[in-house]
Amino acid sequence: MSTTGDNEVIRTLLAHRSIRKFKPDPVTDEQLNLIVAAAQAASTSSNIQAYTVIGITDPERRQRFAELTGNQRHVAECPLFLIWCADLHRLELAVQGQGEQEMHQNMETLLLATVDASLAAQNAAVAAESLGLGIVYIGGIRNNPDAVVTELGLPSLSYPLFGMCVGVPDQSPDKRPRLPLEAVYAHDAYPSDAKLKEQVEKYDDELSGYYAVRSGGARTSNWSIEMASRLKENNLRGHMAEHLTKQGFKLK
Amino acid sequence: MSTTGDNEVIRTLLAHRSIRKFKPDPVTDEQLNLIVAAAQAASTSSNIQAYTVIGITDPERRQRFAELTGNQRHVAECPLFLIWCADLHRLELAVQGQGEQEMHQNMETLLLATVDASLAAQNAAVAAESLGLGIVYIGGIRNNPDAVVTELGLPSLSYPLFGMCVGVPDQSPDKRPRLPLEAVYAHDAYPSDAKLKEQVEKYDDELSGYYAVRSGGARTSNWSIEMASRLKENNLRGHMAEHLTKQGFKLK
Repeated sequence: MSTTGDNEVIRTLLAHRSIRKFKPDPVTDEQLNLIVAAAQAASTSSNIQAYTVIGITDPERRQRFAELTGNQRHVAECPLFLIWCADLHRLELAVQGQGEQEMHQNMETLLLATVDASLAAQNAAVAAESLGLGIVYIGGIRNNPDAVVTELGLPSLSYPLFGMCVGVPDQSPDKRPRLPLEAVYAHDAYPSDAKLKEQVEKYDDELSGYYAVRSGGARTSNWSIEMASRLKENNLRGHMAEHLTKQGFKLK
Repeated sequence: MSTTGDNEVIRTLLAHRSIRKFKPDPVTDEQLNLIVAAAQAASTSSNIQAYTVIGITDPERRQRFAELTGNQRHVAECPLFLIWCADLHRLELAVQGQGEQEMHQNMETLLLATVDASLAAQNAAVAAESLGLGIVYIGGIRNNPDAVVTELGLPSLSYPLFGMCVGVPDQSPDKRPRLPLEAVYAHDAYPSDAKLKEQVEKYDDELSGYYAVRSGGARTSNWSIEMASRLKENNLRGHMAEHLTKQGFKLK
């Protein structure tokens, strides 16, 4: 490993693009095993490993999940659809085996499980991409979380956090620019609103230019416009607290 | 990139160990820039980029954060301490710039920000390790989140999710075994309790053997025992819901 400069790992990380069109080639068992092994190697709070991932390859069931996630065609078409669940159920079984009646849980344990699932999934994504596969996260798995619970037989104290399409890419999308580094990283303290607004403005200009070039001038948008639209009440799955409560999570 | 088999990226992912002892060498600006660029390259829900990371290098402030995170010496000793925050504040600024009074938010937006911060942080961890650096996540940043807010000047709609020590490793810890793959990955549906209990038992045996060998027989523990202890009420930061509410998050 080099102690400085660029390397194959960083090149892989920086090359990430979400892939929404896949070749029909299956993900092999060897690839899947490496992907899950990489997921398991991620950090986990005090080794609690509070996540479970469920893989769907059957075309009819992929179609069913495509419907449940907002009719995203790539969910039906990807050869492997992974559903990442934040999961305290296995821990409860272990703890009960030690004679505890009920496992204590609260907002902190919900965060622990959510973070554990996310770190594992991101390692899986990186591993998949290093194998020449493409992925896209599917937040739409939270569109109908109760139906997903039924579909997968998820027990109490687990919930579907996001899906992930995996397969051989059949497209090569551009990389959309991100916020300036200074907008997401700060030294010593959180930046002032004035500085943030300046960075957002800079990014709005960059993204608006990017869209204009790619669309031959047809698309006029920027980050602030997109975010105002994205964060409208209708787009914000107002059922999640109720779903989590139904799954037995305590939001206190 | 190979289409199958092992590669440098997967080797890096599988080689992860948490590092809690660091050489005094600083993390260079070049390394930090690559680490943050890798973080920014991670997937983010609809490009919301709902996280901010704050870097601390000043020794006195690292000492202060060591105290706030449960007197973890490595927090004071690592040359760079990163604090990863789930952050909707920058989004609110952007949305307000579009003439919206207040950004809508709920449990879903809390999850979005928490996941975004986690995916970015895991990319940063992988990038750091590829550069020969070591890292450890510090959940202890949630021990005193209100004090962390004050220390960093965190605005409403952001909260400290975890810290991360970064530096040149001065130790080479063993890799503790994880749960069997079959315990965290399932095909088609969630596994039965009987199957999970079997896997947990297998893991308890493996981990108990691992501890016995490493401690010359002195340490008798296993995963279930550790989890029962870890998940006791006292260890589960009962203040997180209140903290989030104080930071303006809606838990509904």
